[in-house]
Amino acid sequence: MNLLYALDLLGTAAFAASGAWAGVRRDMDLFGVVLLGLVTANGGGTVRDLLLGAPPFILKNETYLYLALIVSLLVFVFHHKMEFLQHPLQYFDAVGLGTFVVIGTGKALEYHIGFFGSVMMGVMTATAGGMIRDVLSNQVPLVLQREVYASACIAGGILLYLLHLTAFPENWALVVAALTVIAVRLLAIRRGWSLPRATINDPG
Amino acid sequence: MNLLYALDLLGTAAFAASGAWAGVRRDMDLFGVVLLGLVTANGGGTVRDLLLGAPPFILKNETYLYLALIVSLLVFVFHHKMEFLQHPLQYFDAVGLGTFVVIGTGKALEYHIGFFGSVMMGVMTATAGGMIRDVLSNQVPLVLQREVYASACIAGGILLYLLHLTAFPENWALVVAALTVIAVRLLAIRRGWSLPRATINDPG
Amino acid sequence: MNLLYALDLLGTAAFAASGAWAGVRRDMDLFGVVLLGLVTANGGGTVRDLLLGAPPFILKNETYLYLALIVSLLVFVFHHKMEFLQHPLQYFDAVGLGTFVVIGTGKALEYHIGFFGSVMMGVMTATAGGMIRDVLSNQVPLVLQREVYASACIAGGILLYLLHLTAFPENWALVVAALTVIAVRLLAIRRGWSLPRATINDPG
Repeated sequence: MNLLYALDLLGTAAFAASGAWAGVRRDMDLFGVVLLGLVTANGGGTVRDLLLGAPPFILKNETYLYLALIVSLLVFVFHHKMEFLQHPLQYFDAVGLGTFVVIGTGKALEYHIGFFGSVMMGVMTATAGGMIRDVLSNQVPLVLQREVYASACIAGGILLYLLHLTAFPENWALVVAALTVIAVRLLAIRRGWSLPRATINDPG
Repeated sequence: MNLLYALDLLGTAAFAASGAWAGVRRDMDLFGVVLLGLVTANGGGTVRDLLLGAPPFILKNETYLYLALIVSLLVFVFHHKMEFLQHPLQYFDAVGLGTFVVIGTGKALEYHIGFFGSVMMGVMTATAGGMIRDVLSNQVPLVLQREVYASACIAGGILLYLLHLTAFPENWALVVAALTVIAVRLLAIRRGWSLPRATINDPG
Repeated sequence: MNLLYALDLLGTAAFAASGAWAGVRRDMDLFGVVLLGLVTANGGGTVRDLLLGAPPFILKNETYLYLALIVSLLVFVFHHKMEFLQHPLQYFDAVGLGTFVVIGTGKALEYHIGFFGSVMMGVMTATAGGMIRDVLSNQVPLVLQREVYASACIAGGILLYLLHLTAFPENWALVVAALTVIAVRLLAIRRGWSLPRATINDPG
């Protein structure tokens, strides 16, 4: 499905930019910036493939690696222009989120994984790369702390799994689920939605 | 072996509670709390299965995922009651420790792994989930720092491996090794045992 | 190839010493010191094998585990002597770096991985263990921040891949590539080379 592949590359580029930008902000050297771009863009799908027992997608089609490398190098060179890109990058990031979820959950369905595991594979594809980025930056992963980010992925993964049980055409199911993730994510950004926290007085 | 499965679920619940509770204390949102519960309960066995080349146990039987999810949600909702549960949770955690060690080392023996690797698989099953929890919480893993925790696992893994070389009945070997881990762990808690450290004056 | 195996063991010992020493400096207990020695020495090759779908080398030949264990115990006991060893350890570490790169890229070539992936496997074999060491020590990985360390590995991996395309004898290709890594690394230490960083005024 060519549209999905195009969106996948767009998402990969957006995620690589977010990773490389985190490396620049953390004062890493060129290698650190590129490595953070690579793991943010490709880490989630790689962890998913390890769990599914599938050959890692990055080793089958190196386009993903080259794309993340080039984007990371561009961020490194033009990092002083990144502030102007923050706003459009949010939209590309949301597109990547939706695409990665349906690719992850879709692949889990091909491997006949159950409901919980299939949704988890979608969420993992979309969020594990960013978690590794934050861990390597010595920070608590952003996705664990605020905003409707992972929840948008969960909603999309559940929707795709349920549509898969029906006679709904598969390609349309992918589109509907991806658009759901993107819509929830963009609404969350615009409205400042966030998940509840358990507030405790004594953090002992 | 039904007793082992029951203890496995009890340990999973105890580990999930410890993970979710760490998420609450670190002021994570609902997703963060649930994810920490899931990885603490299921991360060790998943890493073990990846290393053994086995399909991850969580994808074969999703009961472990649902159980960790439910426990994490309960901790999130009733987090203000968790202080009263700290004491009993220590015992459940010790039971989980012993059970996870014998499951991990036992599975390694089925895969004909050597002595060092088999003991390591037991220790990893019992401790890697907690390490991932601490890394995601941006802290040095507790297990690397204090108390007789991993050492209790090592003792149990070695014992199970040695019993496996003898004519000792397999089911009883599992029970004896698990009880050894639990006993050493509980004694360590009660007596405040800890491993030696290398004390240096200049931490350069 | 017996020379490669000997250098591999030397590198494993040097990496284990660096990991265990990090554990001592971070005031970890005996288990923490040993675990850091083990993951630093063996973590890179293990991650590589997981990605290649190969059985982890540490489970096939436990010599690597025992060697890292013994070195870690020695560092724990004789940690007050480590300062005198810092200088020679740099050389052993460089030897390990070169050896691990050619083993990693060489194994990727056996698995018919492409150019980017093969170089990445070499770099990963040489650096991922140290990254895990730093993450478990709650620090940003050193390799992302300074010095010509990963870049020496990249150069060696690229060279080995290119030589593999020619009629150059395979064993000599391994030697030439490993020596390249070692030479670049030692020159970088002596001359204080480091990679460029993107300097930004406002680290927002």
